[in-house]
Amino acid sequence: MRFTSRTSSAGVIEHSFTLGGIPGVLWTPEGTAATRPLILLGHGGGQHKKAPDVIARAHRFVTGGGFAAVAVDVPGHGDRPKDEELDRIATANQARVAAGAEPAPLIAGFQALVARRTVPEWRAVLDAVQRHGHVGAGPVGYWGVSLGCGLGVPFVAAEPRVRAAVLGLGGALSSAGAAARISVPVEFLLQWDDERVPRAQGLALFDAFGSAEKTLHAHPGGHGDLPASEPEDSLRFFARHLG
Amino acid sequence: MRFTSRTSSAGVIEHSFTLGGIPGVLWTPEGTAATRPLILLGHGGGQHKKAPDVIARAHRFVTGGGFAAVAVDVPGHGDRPKDEELDRIATANQARVAAGAEPAPLIAGFQALVARRTVPEWRAVLDAVQRHGHVGAGPVGYWGVSLGCGLGVPFVAAEPRVRAAVLGLGGALSSAGAAARISVPVEFLLQWDDERVPRAQGLALFDAFGSAEKTLHAHPGGHGDLPASEPEDSLRFFARHLG
Repeated sequence: MRFTSRTSSAGVIEHSFTLGGIPGVLWTPEGTAATRPLILLGHGGGQHKKAPDVIARAHRFVTGGGFAAVAVDVPGHGDRPKDEELDRIATANQARVAAGAEPAPLIAGFQALVARRTVPEWRAVLDAVQRHGHVGAGPVGYWGVSLGCGLGVPFVAAEPRVRAAVLGLGGALSSAGAAARISVPVEFLLQWDDERVPRAQGLALFDAFGSAEKTLHAHPGGHGDLPASEPEDSLRFFARHLG
Repeated sequence: MRFTSRTSSAGVIEHSFTLGGIPGVLWTPEGTAATRPLILLGHGGGQHKKAPDVIARAHRFVTGGGFAAVAVDVPGHGDRPKDEELDRIATANQARVAAGAEPAPLIAGFQALVARRTVPEWRAVLDAVQRHGHVGAGPVGYWGVSLGCGLGVPFVAAEPRVRAAVLGLGGALSSAGAAARISVPVEFLLQWDDERVPRAQGLALFDAFGSAEKTLHAHPGGHGDLPASEPEDSLRFFARHLG
């Protein structure tokens, strides 16, 4: 793990790093080194580790909850090189949707393919970041919707350090099997009029989580219309389960 | 409106009253008279105005949000006389369910019948309570699940003083028409494994609310298993919309 820059604003230190070719950002509170819970943020499709909503959410987790937060670019996103295999499949999928195919199964298949790479990558990120003096080996939370849900469900299922997860805007097609292996508390966000994830698929994914403690929060609106109150809900959820 | 007793505990004054033969309780914060938002609590079937969870919720609204709260006995419940018509129908329904009938349509019909009485009763309660020096003509919230949802949906639809409502554990069979006329913010509670309200009926009622701002909170468990975190969620919801 190689740190490439360090800046500070509004009480939050932003540490840029690379780990085995994966670019990432770690956010910690200003102040002395101390062990604190860590939240890994999965970005959405076409987004990256420093997308405005990722930064805003990370800052809120750091300043509102005293957490550390980390995000890395998914293969083919952000500062990572173009990925010819993923590009080829994405282009073929777009053509199939344009020709009238249902998008949901294609998205599910694509996310399952990407997750085979991101699950080990994200586990390596936890290994490295937890050796940092401002993080340490505390409990871990995961936050991710849309692509961040499709990749997050198999990650949370595979990684015992994750003790609580906010997931959403995803469906059961790709994720039901892994969801059934999750037993930690889950808050699941569903947009009632999601134009990309059929409502029944989202409800079926909530149903599939093996967790005894899980909450579905559904709101009117489309895939991109999470309500303004959502970040505070997530913060309270992590404070309750990682605090 | 005739006040029959006044007691005080843990910062909350409990005023018992009767209004046109309807027994009720008003809870207000200790201290000087002042206008404050009022929350009407609808109790569940077989319950009453002083059921332990009604009292606990009213105290939390008063001490946590500075609200006033009020609850009255529904016809045939609590300190109200037996109601021969409602008793006869309830007994007949129980026999039909014992003989294999679906309970949901029978519950829906029964609640619609009771609501024809409680809607005007509850509006009269608001008229009277808002003349009280510790309440005044501020905004009103409504909280009610199960029977309190079946009766609450037509009440909220009919009463413009209600600016926000927490409803739940009810289905679309009796309430979809009135739900479509509701436009104020709604938080809707659904128990994922509700043995009394089929899941699809609960989801259809959430879908039916006309409100632009509505949130579905679903949790695992049966009809009586609302999570321990629910009262705080309701308090935050009312603080946001009545504050």
